[in-house]
Amino acid sequence: MSVNFQRRVWPNGPIALVLANPTTDVVAGRLFVVGGSRCDGERPGIGQLLAAVLTRGTTTANAREIADAVESLGAGLGTEVQPDYFLVRFKGVSADWPALLRLAGDLVQWPTFPATEVELERRLLLEAVQQRQTQPFAAAWDALRPHLYGAHPYGQPELGTAEAIAALSRAEVQDHYRRWFQPDRLIVALAGRLEPEAVWAQIDQQFGDWRGTAPPFPLPARRFRPADAWVDHGHPQNWVLWGWPAPAIAQADAIPFHLLSVGLGDGPSSRLFVELREKRGLAYDVAATFPWRAAGSHLLAYASTAPADTETTSTVLAQEIERWQTEPLPEWEWQMLQSKVLGQHALRCQTNGQWAQALGWREAMGLPLPWDRQFAQAIQEATPQDVQRVAQTYLRQGSRAIAGSR
Amino acid sequence: MSVNFQRRVWPNGPIALVLANPTTDVVAGRLFVVGGSRCDGERPGIGQLLAAVLTRGTTTANAREIADAVESLGAGLGTEVQPDYFLVRFKGVSADWPALLRLAGDLVQWPTFPATEVELERRLLLEAVQQRQTQPFAAAWDALRPHLYGAHPYGQPELGTAEAIAALSRAEVQDHYRRWFQPDRLIVALAGRLEPEAVWAQIDQQFGDWRGTAPPFPLPARRFRPADAWVDHGHPQNWVLWGWPAPAIAQADAIPFHLLSVGLGDGPSSRLFVELREKRGLAYDVAATFPWRAAGSHLLAYASTAPADTETTSTVLAQEIERWQTEPLPEWEWQMLQSKVLGQHALRCQTNGQWAQALGWREAMGLPLPWDRQFAQAIQEATPQDVQRVAQTYLRQGSRAIAGSR
Repeated sequence: MSVNFQRRVWPNGPIALVLANPTTDVVAGRLFVVGGSRCDGERPGIGQLLAAVLTRGTTTANAREIADAVESLGAGLGTEVQPDYFLVRFKGVSADWPALLRLAGDLVQWPTFPATEVELERRLLLEAVQQRQTQPFAAAWDALRPHLYGAHPYGQPELGTAEAIAALSRAEVQDHYRRWFQPDRLIVALAGRLEPEAVWAQIDQQFGDWRGTAPPFPLPARRFRPADAWVDHGHPQNWVLWGWPAPAIAQADAIPFHLLSVGLGDGPSSRLFVELREKRGLAYDVAATFPWRAAGSHLLAYASTAPADTETTSTVLAQEIERWQTEPLPEWEWQMLQSKVLGQHALRCQTNGQWAQALGWREAMGLPLPWDRQFAQAIQEATPQDVQRVAQTYLRQGSRAIAGSR
Repeated sequence: MSVNFQRRVWPNGPIALVLANPTTDVVAGRLFVVGGSRCDGERPGIGQLLAAVLTRGTTTANAREIADAVESLGAGLGTEVQPDYFLVRFKGVSADWPALLRLAGDLVQWPTFPATEVELERRLLLEAVQQRQTQPFAAAWDALRPHLYGAHPYGQPELGTAEAIAALSRAEVQDHYRRWFQPDRLIVALAGRLEPEAVWAQIDQQFGDWRGTAPPFPLPARRFRPADAWVDHGHPQNWVLWGWPAPAIAQADAIPFHLLSVGLGDGPSSRLFVELREKRGLAYDVAATFPWRAAGSHLLAYASTAPADTETTSTVLAQEIERWQTEPLPEWEWQMLQSKVLGQHALRCQTNGQWAQALGWREAMGLPLPWDRQFAQAIQEATPQDVQRVAQTYLRQGSRAIAGSR
């Protein structure tokens, strides 16, 4: 990020980042609370429920009043939980930023978790979990993930489990909130037509008196188990998923590993796309992803295919993984891959929302301040041999899960 | 749109629009060919297949070379078909716009439809149609749409029918292309760090010699039939869909109708959300949509619910529709709705891609040049009585479809 942002740290914990971008009349904000679903512990889904009920009432407004306040500004406000953080995001026209930041801050600091709202959101979350199980990709991924992570929190289903959610009480949600929502975990990032001094003043006033400390994150040792799982699923296509362990975003290996994942399965020039879809017409949806996470990650490669083509698809996919280990990328392919990753990096922040997200995310992941510049430089300095080396380090052995009909 | 764009019309048909926006180093482009899936005729799905194979070969590059050219610029390029237009879109860093516009123009003007690529995309499209049928929302929508449109082209399934796609030949795709892709249907919209004169010069060179005229659009009279359809579907949730006829975007009624659709089912302050999800906890996904189309449209309101709650959900939904006809919106709700629609309008163009889309879309829909300013003004001048009137005009009688288990 060659842009000019300002950063300020408060003695009680909060960190704020402001990007002054006067070109559009839109202000976007992100309030990160570092933590997220990795804090779910014995109650997978509690972070999802917590994020959903944050908007359902504060000490000064009920659910309807919160929704109406946002809509009467023509603005947007939402909450979510990710594996590494809770998030409140908003956007609106510039003049409304103080009202929106106040509202978003109230959700983070003064939620009341009204009993009927918790119960309603709990039921809606249960329905979402049910719906998710009808999707073959999700079914296969739920079968694969535990083998990639063992007891590590990232191994839990993304929305939680029906059993845990069915048993959740309001008191548990409230305890979970009190434990993890503390000022030393708060990051506020704003981008738009803003005076940083005015933002600092409001943050002083909103969060300056907040006191508390969140506990360290639970981090059971990660254990990868090679496995081959099958989920029966009544869907016309079979979904073949392969997974491997991958480095955390702060590790040096993450750079060549990112290049590998893009070259393997991101877009129509990627090897999986060319081999499985273009050359052989075996698969419709085909891709690979490497999420950028704080405490270790995974590479997931997948394809949907006709039941009769399942084994061929899986074999071709595994062969493509082996190629990265046995031969370095040829020069023409390497240059294309580097250009592509640098281009994606250059194009990723077009809106103030994307800027606020990028600024806050870097901070939430504990990455150094000039990380974005370092990232671009590291991509340019990486070599095909670096990529081959991480392929050999991480991809020796994978786990597989298939959802479909035999 | 209070921004400054330039517009130029060529004698052989093409219209070009350029928004010079020097604030980011990104250029985005949209090539609209007015037409789209409304031209499918007796072959529902032929427009989808045509859009998919446009990227699969031109007189100067094969599929792989096209993909590699884009990726080696770190850029993005894609094609799609909508009910009212075909679209080629691209984005990249500013310096690459001439190369990207040339490439996108070649897809529009010089596609070769290689036989193996047509066959591959045809099979992939068939798979997508199959997959779509497993989704309960899509199944219900496919059952409802014909009742809203009769033989009107908008009544066809969005991806086409398996029967028609299975029978499509390369020659038919090529004929369809030659018939509808003509210079008098081409609109080129670019936004970014650009000199309009340089864009005009390249468009001169690329499209100046292209000659031809597309036929008028087929437009069978639209016929609405009240109906109540049921689709058996093995999904834990039932999907309840209600549909009504709605005005085309160029009609004056479209403004109050848009207000109605947003107030009914867009976001957490909307009436369906409040009634079905918040107050009664009956539904998880609940929304209403009114697509902006050239030749008439529809209002679709839907909710997913537990099988036991299906009739209650449907009844509440129908009651909400009746309320718009019998009582005008109270003042507080009206002001919130106006602010919301004006806010959405103000926030909708943040990226150059969104700008290029908005500029080209207005032109493709045949709307007047100052349409965006007129839109904002018309929203401000509308009254609760206008909304009540369009509710009475269009929503007297609806059609229903449910996908699920009884």
